[in-house]
Amino acid sequence: MGDDEISLATQEEFSNSPPRGFLVATVRCGLKKNGDDLAVIYSERPAVAAAVFTRNLVQAAPVQLSREHLRSRTHRAILVNSGGANACTGEEGLEDARRCTRRLARLLGCLEREILVASTGVIGVRLNMKKLDLGIEQAARRLDRSSLERVAEAIMTTDTRPKHVVSRVTIGGKTVKIAGVAKGSGMIHPDMATLLSFVTTDAALSKPALRSALRQAVARSFNRVSVDGDTSTNDTLAVIANGAAENPEITRAEGDEFARFTKALTSVAERLAIEVAKDGEGARKLITIVVRRAPTPRDAERIAKTIATSPLVKTAIAGADANWGRILAAAGRSGARFDPGRVEIRIGDLAVARQGRGLKFSEERASDILSRDSVKILVDLHQGTAETTEWTCDLTEDYIRINADYRS
Amino acid sequence: MGDDEISLATQEEFSNSPPRGFLVATVRCGLKKNGDDLAVIYSERPAVAAAVFTRNLVQAAPVQLSREHLRSRTHRAILVNSGGANACTGEEGLEDARRCTRRLARLLGCLEREILVASTGVIGVRLNMKKLDLGIEQAARRLDRSSLERVAEAIMTTDTRPKHVVSRVTIGGKTVKIAGVAKGSGMIHPDMATLLSFVTTDAALSKPALRSALRQAVARSFNRVSVDGDTSTNDTLAVIANGAAENPEITRAEGDEFARFTKALTSVAERLAIEVAKDGEGARKLITIVVRRAPTPRDAERIAKTIATSPLVKTAIAGADANWGRILAAAGRSGARFDPGRVEIRIGDLAVARQGRGLKFSEERASDILSRDSVKILVDLHQGTAETTEWTCDLTEDYIRINADYRS
Repeated sequence: MGDDEISLATQEEFSNSPPRGFLVATVRCGLKKNGDDLAVIYSERPAVAAAVFTRNLVQAAPVQLSREHLRSRTHRAILVNSGGANACTGEEGLEDARRCTRRLARLLGCLEREILVASTGVIGVRLNMKKLDLGIEQAARRLDRSSLERVAEAIMTTDTRPKHVVSRVTIGGKTVKIAGVAKGSGMIHPDMATLLSFVTTDAALSKPALRSALRQAVARSFNRVSVDGDTSTNDTLAVIANGAAENPEITRAEGDEFARFTKALTSVAERLAIEVAKDGEGARKLITIVVRRAPTPRDAERIAKTIATSPLVKTAIAGADANWGRILAAAGRSGARFDPGRVEIRIGDLAVARQGRGLKFSEERASDILSRDSVKILVDLHQGTAETTEWTCDLTEDYIRINADYRS
Repeated sequence: MGDDEISLATQEEFSNSPPRGFLVATVRCGLKKNGDDLAVIYSERPAVAAAVFTRNLVQAAPVQLSREHLRSRTHRAILVNSGGANACTGEEGLEDARRCTRRLARLLGCLEREILVASTGVIGVRLNMKKLDLGIEQAARRLDRSSLERVAEAIMTTDTRPKHVVSRVTIGGKTVKIAGVAKGSGMIHPDMATLLSFVTTDAALSKPALRSALRQAVARSFNRVSVDGDTSTNDTLAVIANGAAENPEITRAEGDEFARFTKALTSVAERLAIEVAKDGEGARKLITIVVRRAPTPRDAERIAKTIATSPLVKTAIAGADANWGRILAAAGRSGARFDPGRVEIRIGDLAVARQGRGLKFSEERASDILSRDSVKILVDLHQGTAETTEWTCDLTEDYIRINADYRS
């Protein structure tokens, strides 16, 4: 593997070699009806962390506490539970979150502020602290060198499969590993549900460098499945780096080594983001929307995001209906400034509109392309150089079924 | 009926007395598979008109032509077809629209520019002009004093029932009548489908006064079902006033008579808008969202609109699930600035959250309230004086079924 290459894989290929120096535990403490619902990720040595959180004005207690703890110079652990979001629970909810980190810190022998915490589940209900206290104790006892995949399983809500990606890259002659997990599922629309993602890496890098790498990775991955601008109360993406790979420390957000690490982190984040889009509630198809030759990057992004969140476009694709007029109409209401009379639209490799007008095309072929489990929509504006990609999924009856009665 | 009262009714009560001086015809020219698909509304005397159109950057040919014709001082007719939107059809599409108005003008003996035109249906396909030519001729021959309700039927697409409201109000000692029709249906989300609405009145008022009255009415009706900001390529609301009631002309947008007319027009528009929301694709419930005591009108509106377009909120209500956390989370991502810790939420008359936190409430009672066919959600911010109302409907599996294969 050349120095410039990044090797990306799913768990089958790499599961025997997770990033060094991390321990993991998952337990079932009964917050959810079935399966594990609590996980701890622990670094054997002091690590640095970076995180991005929801921009929602309503911020869950664990988000508030993690923001506070993120000011710590070192970090040791991430604590996460499903089965309760601990959002809209007031001062008591914040105290519950504190109590969790306090207990875990005592058990792990680290400082409270070295622990980041995340929750997912129903909003507005306090956590069952009795169950959590027991679960945290069990988890601390059970930490071992398992793969992060266990965590992916424990944080699932309406996800149909765990999302786990690992990657490695050579930095300063050392093999650095990056492992990431995510849960999403309710992400057919931006406001759907909680996105949680945790990434561990044994790379050695400074906290500012890690933060910068994370921001770049997020901009090209999770922010392109419309997660960041419109978010739930609990969205959290945290990365923790412990230096166990013993590469020469990347101290600043510049240079080749930093770029290589950032590229590898981006690959992991992008793969996770795509997995999340693919597994959107009720989804049968991954939709990749490419907007090309737009006047400005902002125009490109507005158009891509509006198409990606248009229920009309997404139901048409669910029905394998090449209704390109809805795509152009979504672009038209996106707020971007452009000349509709120059727009070309392709579904897969089939041109369906050019210069803002419909072309004659084989409906059979279009339906064929749209029936695959991955569909690409290209909107070429022919009026600039800006380009962007956005991922989403189709909107099906199952989405409604899942969400109509989520709390019971 | 006192001078200040407005009498609002559906067709049963008033159908025998539509506004004076208007003729109507509907015909089936074969653009749609079933039923009438072309309508003409004609004023026997020169009238004034006002209209609002989609703000979508992509504007259908009939919208472009109607904007141009709206500069005329007098108007005589509105021509509308379903079964084809004539959008994204280039110069040829515009020429098709012109040909329609030219033909109708010749048959009616008026000027082309005295005719407004509107279309609804699939985007990107040219109209079948042979069918339209014949249809227009038939319609011109068949004009009679029927109620506007016939037009409501002819413009239906996925609507399950025609929407027709009539009203009367005394102005200057004369009874003035207002009749309105609308089609919507694909309006569960703002980008759904074409909204068309046409209003006739025999009031005598100047064109500037009519324009002003229409703007005020729209702000309190159709703009509150999220139709105007995010729109299709064809949305059109046109009102035509012919003075046949012989009230002293309202020349300016001020004074008691103007206010009374505007109030009556607003009632008609509001009733039509609510009918449209109620009959949203797949909808089983009308949802009324009231935001109260917000810091600013803009904050109130942002919150109401974000809740009204949240698929999570709308599916929860479809499932009669009192998931108030989703309501607060939608408010939180609306862009409005407020303190979530002071927010109270009521579902019907049942308080479910106060000071940003969940209350204990009877789930049975909540489910009972949410199972009715009209549900009111109150979000009281307790931090200001601004208030607004927004209408929407629940999001059901039927919505997906209707939209997954709309073109065939």
